[in-house]
Amino acid sequence: MQDAAAKPLTNGTEYIESLRGRNLKVWYLGERVTEPVDHPVIRPSVNAVARTYDLANEDPHLATVWSSLTHQRVNRFLHITETVTDVVDQNRMQRKLGQLTGTCFQRCVGMDALNSLFSVTFDIDEAHQTAYHQRFRRFVTRMQELNYVIGGAMTDPKGDRAKGPSAQADPDLFVHVVKRTEEGVVLRGAKMHQTGCLNSHWIVFMPTMRLTPADRDYAVVAAVPADHPGLTYIYGRQSCDTRALEGGEIDQGNAKFSGQEAMIVLDDVFVPNECLFMDGETEFAAALVERFTAYHRRSYVCKTGVGDVLIGAAALIADYNGVSNVSHVRDKLVEMTHLNETIYGAGIAASHESKPTSAHNYQPDDLLANVCKHNVTRFPYEMARLAQDLAGGLVATLPSEKDFENEETGPLLRKYLKGREGVSAEDRARALRLIENMTLGRNAVGYLTESMHGAGSPQAQRIQIARQMNLEEKKELAKNLAGISTYDGVTERK
Amino acid sequence: MQDAAAKPLTNGTEYIESLRGRNLKVWYLGERVTEPVDHPVIRPSVNAVARTYDLANEDPHLATVWSSLTHQRVNRFLHITETVTDVVDQNRMQRKLGQLTGTCFQRCVGMDALNSLFSVTFDIDEAHQTAYHQRFRRFVTRMQELNYVIGGAMTDPKGDRAKGPSAQADPDLFVHVVKRTEEGVVLRGAKMHQTGCLNSHWIVFMPTMRLTPADRDYAVVAAVPADHPGLTYIYGRQSCDTRALEGGEIDQGNAKFSGQEAMIVLDDVFVPNECLFMDGETEFAAALVERFTAYHRRSYVCKTGVGDVLIGAAALIADYNGVSNVSHVRDKLVEMTHLNETIYGAGIAASHESKPTSAHNYQPDDLLANVCKHNVTRFPYEMARLAQDLAGGLVATLPSEKDFENEETGPLLRKYLKGREGVSAEDRARALRLIENMTLGRNAVGYLTESMHGAGSPQAQRIQIARQMNLEEKKELAKNLAGISTYDGVTERK
Amino acid sequence: MQDAAAKPLTNGTEYIESLRGRNLKVWYLGERVTEPVDHPVIRPSVNAVARTYDLANEDPHLATVWSSLTHQRVNRFLHITETVTDVVDQNRMQRKLGQLTGTCFQRCVGMDALNSLFSVTFDIDEAHQTAYHQRFRRFVTRMQELNYVIGGAMTDPKGDRAKGPSAQADPDLFVHVVKRTEEGVVLRGAKMHQTGCLNSHWIVFMPTMRLTPADRDYAVVAAVPADHPGLTYIYGRQSCDTRALEGGEIDQGNAKFSGQEAMIVLDDVFVPNECLFMDGETEFAAALVERFTAYHRRSYVCKTGVGDVLIGAAALIADYNGVSNVSHVRDKLVEMTHLNETIYGAGIAASHESKPTSAHNYQPDDLLANVCKHNVTRFPYEMARLAQDLAGGLVATLPSEKDFENEETGPLLRKYLKGREGVSAEDRARALRLIENMTLGRNAVGYLTESMHGAGSPQAQRIQIARQMNLEEKKELAKNLAGISTYDGVTERK
Amino acid sequence: MQDAAAKPLTNGTEYIESLRGRNLKVWYLGERVTEPVDHPVIRPSVNAVARTYDLANEDPHLATVWSSLTHQRVNRFLHITETVTDVVDQNRMQRKLGQLTGTCFQRCVGMDALNSLFSVTFDIDEAHQTAYHQRFRRFVTRMQELNYVIGGAMTDPKGDRAKGPSAQADPDLFVHVVKRTEEGVVLRGAKMHQTGCLNSHWIVFMPTMRLTPADRDYAVVAAVPADHPGLTYIYGRQSCDTRALEGGEIDQGNAKFSGQEAMIVLDDVFVPNECLFMDGETEFAAALVERFTAYHRRSYVCKTGVGDVLIGAAALIADYNGVSNVSHVRDKLVEMTHLNETIYGAGIAASHESKPTSAHNYQPDDLLANVCKHNVTRFPYEMARLAQDLAGGLVATLPSEKDFENEETGPLLRKYLKGREGVSAEDRARALRLIENMTLGRNAVGYLTESMHGAGSPQAQRIQIARQMNLEEKKELAKNLAGISTYDGVTERK
Repeated sequence: MQDAAAKPLTNGTEYIESLRGRNLKVWYLGERVTEPVDHPVIRPSVNAVARTYDLANEDPHLATVWSSLTHQRVNRFLHITETVTDVVDQNRMQRKLGQLTGTCFQRCVGMDALNSLFSVTFDIDEAHQTAYHQRFRRFVTRMQELNYVIGGAMTDPKGDRAKGPSAQADPDLFVHVVKRTEEGVVLRGAKMHQTGCLNSHWIVFMPTMRLTPADRDYAVVAAVPADHPGLTYIYGRQSCDTRALEGGEIDQGNAKFSGQEAMIVLDDVFVPNECLFMDGETEFAAALVERFTAYHRRSYVCKTGVGDVLIGAAALIADYNGVSNVSHVRDKLVEMTHLNETIYGAGIAASHESKPTSAHNYQPDDLLANVCKHNVTRFPYEMARLAQDLAGGLVATLPSEKDFENEETGPLLRKYLKGREGVSAEDRARALRLIENMTLGRNAVGYLTESMHGAGSPQAQRIQIARQMNLEEKKELAKNLAGISTYDGVTERK
Repeated sequence: MQDAAAKPLTNGTEYIESLRGRNLKVWYLGERVTEPVDHPVIRPSVNAVARTYDLANEDPHLATVWSSLTHQRVNRFLHITETVTDVVDQNRMQRKLGQLTGTCFQRCVGMDALNSLFSVTFDIDEAHQTAYHQRFRRFVTRMQELNYVIGGAMTDPKGDRAKGPSAQADPDLFVHVVKRTEEGVVLRGAKMHQTGCLNSHWIVFMPTMRLTPADRDYAVVAAVPADHPGLTYIYGRQSCDTRALEGGEIDQGNAKFSGQEAMIVLDDVFVPNECLFMDGETEFAAALVERFTAYHRRSYVCKTGVGDVLIGAAALIADYNGVSNVSHVRDKLVEMTHLNETIYGAGIAASHESKPTSAHNYQPDDLLANVCKHNVTRFPYEMARLAQDLAGGLVATLPSEKDFENEETGPLLRKYLKGREGVSAEDRARALRLIENMTLGRNAVGYLTESMHGAGSPQAQRIQIARQMNLEEKKELAKNLAGISTYDGVTERK
Repeated sequence: MQDAAAKPLTNGTEYIESLRGRNLKVWYLGERVTEPVDHPVIRPSVNAVARTYDLANEDPHLATVWSSLTHQRVNRFLHITETVTDVVDQNRMQRKLGQLTGTCFQRCVGMDALNSLFSVTFDIDEAHQTAYHQRFRRFVTRMQELNYVIGGAMTDPKGDRAKGPSAQADPDLFVHVVKRTEEGVVLRGAKMHQTGCLNSHWIVFMPTMRLTPADRDYAVVAAVPADHPGLTYIYGRQSCDTRALEGGEIDQGNAKFSGQEAMIVLDDVFVPNECLFMDGETEFAAALVERFTAYHRRSYVCKTGVGDVLIGAAALIADYNGVSNVSHVRDKLVEMTHLNETIYGAGIAASHESKPTSAHNYQPDDLLANVCKHNVTRFPYEMARLAQDLAGGLVATLPSEKDFENEETGPLLRKYLKGREGVSAEDRARALRLIENMTLGRNAVGYLTESMHGAGSPQAQRIQIARQMNLEEKKELAKNLAGISTYDGVTERK
Repeated sequence: MQDAAAKPLTNGTEYIESLRGRNLKVWYLGERVTEPVDHPVIRPSVNAVARTYDLANEDPHLATVWSSLTHQRVNRFLHITETVTDVVDQNRMQRKLGQLTGTCFQRCVGMDALNSLFSVTFDIDEAHQTAYHQRFRRFVTRMQELNYVIGGAMTDPKGDRAKGPSAQADPDLFVHVVKRTEEGVVLRGAKMHQTGCLNSHWIVFMPTMRLTPADRDYAVVAAVPADHPGLTYIYGRQSCDTRALEGGEIDQGNAKFSGQEAMIVLDDVFVPNECLFMDGETEFAAALVERFTAYHRRSYVCKTGVGDVLIGAAALIADYNGVSNVSHVRDKLVEMTHLNETIYGAGIAASHESKPTSAHNYQPDDLLANVCKHNVTRFPYEMARLAQDLAGGLVATLPSEKDFENEETGPLLRKYLKGREGVSAEDRARALRLIENMTLGRNAVGYLTESMHGAGSPQAQRIQIARQMNLEEKKELAKNLAGISTYDGVTERK
């Protein structure tokens, strides 16, 4: 938190400026990126985060909230929830931003990490008389004051999945402490597919799974400034990413916004004590993961906002094709809506059912949060299928925008690709490119693949649902109605 | 409300007694039923309602609530919601009762009718300077004092579905006013598949659909005592209903509880003015139906309680078969749980998102309520399929309990139908019969067919979802991201 | 084959007569059934088998075939397939009989057992110089001459599923040889849910699973006359079975036809050598099970015939309700048809892809047969759901036919339950009762639960699909396109 | 058929050479493509067609067949089916080529067009005493001799979908005759998303829908050489198409093969009479479309070959991730296989059930062909979802191959992205890129979107299924079992 002189960021433009000149070590397509903010492939992801700043000004009720840490309104993404409504309002804001960007706006991981660490640091201190919680409050307070973007880094490369961190052939396959001094610790390792990491000011590193006592060096939570010289970022390719380099706008589908995921390599990063929020308390790793995922899995309500865009795009192309009143078309839009709202229902239910933690922030319902995310691993794929159905085959065979501009082919395309009366071929192309973007292109990564794996792959939710399905209690309900009594573990007749 | 001397009912036993000696005209299997309470086929449905009374004593926090109408705690089924929590707590109580009875406990229709009429009568009075609302409050107050069961009767026979009420060849195919006097009105017609009607003390008749001015005589809401001599009840058959007449218990699957649906014929029933809550205000019929269905569709959260029993039964038989740790078995239980909680999520989300009406009670979110019910028309069928999968073929080929009792066949069955070590053949039979009961037998009517059609068939929800899917707004979201601008209804390039 | 004087059965009536007076030990509802043929609950299952005889006369091209064993046309159910067309024509006949009976007609198990034993006995003889195959040909020849019904008995009680036959605490939990003499063997044990066993003349007992050398006494295949005094039959209950005892017809839904499943107990049944087709050759048990299930799983094409009835019933009630042209109604009928034909496609594909065995009969494609059956464990449930959707709630709340006959309630029902112009309330009731019968009642057992578990539960198909999915070959396809080469088990770069 | 001196093409290399120097007017990304064969984006689609030539040499039994037109073995894609086996063998060849290319190999449209035109020209001649059929036989004979690639062009732009061809504001929105002379006709219009058109030697233009007498000029079938100067091709963009321009191989996923779709504009193309196979016989347009789609919809069995690759890729990455024995992983591979084989089953069933036409070639079963294709619009999407599930998130966040080559990032990637012991990071990357290619990238266009819309969008199949579902017959089946008799259109009691 060296930035004592830093000034709070008050809008998207200031935010974007704040990212410049940080000299991050970023690699993309085999080359060092000198200024990510100005890189055409990266910029749309910056814009998506900037949108969270602007929304805070446009709709402060939705995107800011009074914080008892700073005694002022802060961006909701930095807020420690103080009421159930705070938790629910995160979902409302997420849906709105999904609608405005049509992609991942990248700030949820940090929000969810802050809220889960808030209670976990409290619990560690209770158990171990450590001082993580106060430290952490200071960190959060400072971030709120500066209105910074926090990234949360959890997923390690994991190597051989049959082995835990300390049992790997290469100890670096999970982030771990390689050295401890009076002043702090040194970290090494890597984190995979890190959402919005380049667009963050600080990144909080956390363990990715339940740990055993042998994994002590892996039980570390640390905040690191994103521009720490020990961090290397290798940018992930996205489907159709290089369309942003082609100079046009239409073929990108959504030229303004995209998500961002990169791999981060930590090459002996020193973390001072004041930025250390867990160090060796292995028994709390599982609690941290569970609380974080409970938060983060219902954060996938954001995809219902993205889904709203897809429904809108599907309705738009149906309209442009002149078939918006055909019954099967309408029925498919209803089905998309039904699926989208089913996700939303489970998500906000998880938030509405939040319970206070010992640290007095609020924690969403774990079972419903997992149910929400599990539906997210299914329904967007079905919605994408329905959108492609409504789009017609042209969504995958449309010539490029340069062919529209070309003076030989342009007139032919305008003649033959016109939609219904009053709809230009170009607008039709734009609608189709947006659907392509969301079902095959850049934002299909965010809308589909990230929906599958972000916040844990489907099987992770099934394991968590299994843990909470209370079969014994349900078996008792059944026995009660079936007239079966049990005594001393042996089933007997009443 | 003639029962001035009546005493409040304080438990299930008193409730059951209160139903005796009413001389209802009930027909079943071609015969007049002299005392429904004591009829073996009908009694399980009475028990299910009685359970709502006993729960109020066992768990008053869940099943009773302080009412500002009577200034005392009343049964939650009779309560006019005063907070959002009141609406959500209905869902919690419904799930609990589903768990305890494994079937339909029949009191929700009345609860939902009271809450929707509360605001609709208020709105009619505002528009027409009528006095329905105060009248209605008196009615509700009295019901709360007596702790009565209220049935809600909505579905008319409907005849030719292409025609409205007043256009039918037979005017009686929708309940309507055939005569008006100073003191009140006379009603004629019928209501189909009325849940728990015999087990009610009073029945509120309501129109079933949007009405036009021509349908004036059909725009009537009236409370009628269930023992009115003008009412005839023809009891609906349920799958396996007569197993209750066979003298045993096991083959019924759930011998204690069942649902109840009957047809009610109104043969010139006089309704005094004090029991009339709408009379001719056709333009409010649609509002009443919409508010009632918003309430009632999220009431289908009850099926998640029933689903808990089915999950428990499936887990139990898997356990008895010795396969509870097999991965595909466990995975199917997870899937059942996931589907069940998805329903629950949408249902309680609808309740949590309730908004106050002009009459100051709370109305659930319409879209989410429809989404909840629409999932109810799908997921229980899939859960039933999975339960049959886990049960094994014996669920449909098991010999009768009398064959277990028979001295020649009993020993053979006990020898060959034993489950894993420590599980008797009879307990295994009981678990299987419960699954049969819920997927093919009496309570399959409640768990499956009623889930399909109760509170409106699937298409009714799709229509309602279509009304609320806001395509225009979503199209704007898509246009914004695709870079399409619109001017004066014509789409143009920016 | 003691019945040297027996005369061939030439039609359904003669078949029914042939079942009389056999003094079978049959138990149902705790009582000994003196003459199953005349028992109202059992008779519909007899009628279903009789239909197979009558079809042979009505459509000899479909239901009979020239046999090179007897050098005459024989009933197709007794035929050893001699061409691919023979295998496909079984499916055509099965679909037709499903259409005519709306239920299980019970003769397929025997047909499939004969065809799989034909090649397995040949292979055993090749390996062991035994004489089973000639013996078996004599048996089949005699059955063809007499035109008898053959039952096939495979499923044992199985006890503790973690243990094989010879490791069970009770050795009788799988059928086994308890004594061997010069003349033959003595069998003991039981077989579960045996389709059509009472309606058979002979029953072929077969092992149910892969066996180890330790299971020698369990590796036995034997033909036993159904009226052997050592056999006891305990009849399985079906949902709504006792409606057949009520005296009416409508409430049964399908009064004429039903399936049949019973448990068979073998109490020291002596089998002469001439009826023994495997005895101790444990290594052939797996082959027998696999060939039988390949045959039998594609035999489930019969359910598409039953599905045709359900589609017809759904279309009929939609018509009676006056909504047959509503788009969502029509679309649901299309979906039902699509699902039904998907099953049919996989089934006849398995048959069309039959290959000759070493014994020169034809064996269906195993993978496609499993795929066919696996779809049968899913789609009929979805079709039943759609049928209930189209039926409306009345399918589960309709009063009894006795209420239609009653002079007080009959007129009310006829007035209020009329469908569209020209459709009587009674015909509407009949259509609804048929849907109830197929989705909740007696034939739901055959259409749904038997579809789930008959010929092996879903997981059995998944195991068989897994065995044949050739992942290694498919991985090579992927490596070829991805540019990955492998050398000596280690993956290397080209 | 000017190419009298042309020599037959005997392998893929010769085929590729035959495409050179044709001076096609091809546009892509706004530029004229001078030699499509050498264009890096187009070449993979050429390779896919070339694979069909090489397969004919590698496996002549599969990919060639004796033709009674030329009295020699010809490529199966050019063969007029003479037996049922011929039809089925098309499917086997299609699956094989799907396996070998992992994409669309483009020759099926021509094959299916030839086979449907063979019988339609015959029928027109029968009705009109025209001479199309002999003419058409000569055309096919010549194509077989030369071993040429035939494209089939059906889909017009269609404009306002509520209006037929002759009612459009712009008459060119459907291809039509603009001038007739003694020697032939002149065509104008366009055809959309034409599979493999650039890679064809000749293209057969056909009407796209049922026509009315007013549409006479639109009822035209004509063969045109692909290098006709009146044809302009505008190449469709595919997701990730420009990765082929980047110089590497890995990031393309499948660098060797892709599909091809382009828009063709006909600018007054003269067609001599000998190449005209319909001209004005509007009443045969529907028959042509139906026969073509029956053929072409079951041709989508090719996607099961592509599906085999995807299953293999999913199994491969699971293996590389070290989780191939985890039960849920294995179960997902089984599910993918089950879905894939379900498609295959319906497809080959349609082929096996082919019937001879009046022209003596064979026509597949229409209902099953539609069922096959309708499953293709669903199951590949679910398979893609499952493949992404098994791939893990890295499938969408993997850095580029240039980052692997870079000396700073390469070692980091190799360290952190290693799979299980013995698997290199690069091979893991290749497997992931193949899955990306098939679910998001170039071949997702062929595997998903083309599966949705090729050979008709889903609703087209539903309409065709509806036409053939024989509801009246099925209603009679239901009435028979329900005991309902009908007399003179009025339903009566027996």
